[in-house]
Amino acid sequence: MGTVSATTPWKQLLIRALESNSHLKHSSFFQLATVGSDGRPSNRTVVFRGFEENSDKIQINTDTRTRKVEELKQCPFAEICWYFTDSWEQFRINGRVDVIDGSNLDSVKLQLREKSWYDSSIKSRMQYLGPNPGLPCLNERPSNEFFLDPSSGPVAPFCLLIVDPEQVDYLNLKSNQRIMFTFTQNANGENCWNSVRINP
Amino acid sequence: MGTVSATTPWKQLLIRALESNSHLKHSSFFQLATVGSDGRPSNRTVVFRGFEENSDKIQINTDTRTRKVEELKQCPFAEICWYFTDSWEQFRINGRVDVIDGSNLDSVKLQLREKSWYDSSIKSRMQYLGPNPGLPCLNERPSNEFFLDPSSGPVAPFCLLIVDPEQVDYLNLKSNQRIMFTFTQNANGENCWNSVRINP
Repeated sequence: MGTVSATTPWKQLLIRALESNSHLKHSSFFQLATVGSDGRPSNRTVVFRGFEENSDKIQINTDTRTRKVEELKQCPFAEICWYFTDSWEQFRINGRVDVIDGSNLDSVKLQLREKSWYDSSIKSRMQYLGPNPGLPCLNERPSNEFFLDPSSGPVAPFCLLIVDPEQVDYLNLKSNQRIMFTFTQNANGENCWNSVRINP
Repeated sequence: MGTVSATTPWKQLLIRALESNSHLKHSSFFQLATVGSDGRPSNRTVVFRGFEENSDKIQINTDTRTRKVEELKQCPFAEICWYFTDSWEQFRINGRVDVIDGSNLDSVKLQLREKSWYDSSIKSRMQYLGPNPGLPCLNERPSNEFFLDPSSGPVAPFCLLIVDPEQVDYLNLKSNQRIMFTFTQNANGENCWNSVRINP
């Protein structure tokens, strides 16, 4: 009924979906759900910032001052819902999230954060200079009035989120096919992905 | 700093967004986040089925056999994330969800469920005749092999979800404006919506 694979079968589907929808700016946007401190769900649109090199892990940039960072520190799990509006494909990606801010003690992680900062446009970087997101507007200076040296490294509020997928629920609304991919370890302790066709 | 309104100010913005994006089929799709029985977030795309008559409540059709129904019975809260890809507007709508299946004892709610059934296309209704969503495919008969009398009422798996908004976080990425709408009761016990401009 299911098949087992040492590579990442859903990643191929996702890369193909990104390619076939690449003419749409919003194809790199998805919705990230977390659990709030009150136990209620939270949900917002974020931007895909690529996979971590040689891995299946999904990168997102955010501001340490947003509510999701606080929420992820309490409940480090998220579900991405990524719907491709042209190919009618949906990926629901569930996994643990690593929150990497400037205070991280792991130098490899700090390098990933720095790389993601320099990979962002100057306009994106400017957002982190603005006033505290989510707080009432106090007519502070908008972030575009600040000067940012393109060669200077990440500012304190800049934060990298890395989602490590454990389960991916793939749905194709054109073919009406649905596949559940689950990360497992086999008897030899090797990591692999199990896939099963399920009813849509 | 904030303003108070007896009508529903975010509903006007939402209706305007629906109109300005109506040329896109996917403009009626949004992502619904819930909390799973394991305490992890869940997230999936669903279809907007209109407002409940003369109210701000948002209607969604679903199958009682899906995981979200089970989840909502344990934690009756959801957050909708609705991103409009043409007007660059996002609505994050948080509220309590009423799950109305055929066993509901409230005749008014059962009428709402029946109305939503007849408002759906025959093709949509057929989905509820198919095999159990999320379970492994067993090569059962696909739902399009069944016959459905257009005049017959809702089948058992048909379920209406009604989201009663308590907080709406509106973001306009073109104007870079963000407004937080919060449902409150004033000193006279009257319901009203409080709105505050917040930093994007």
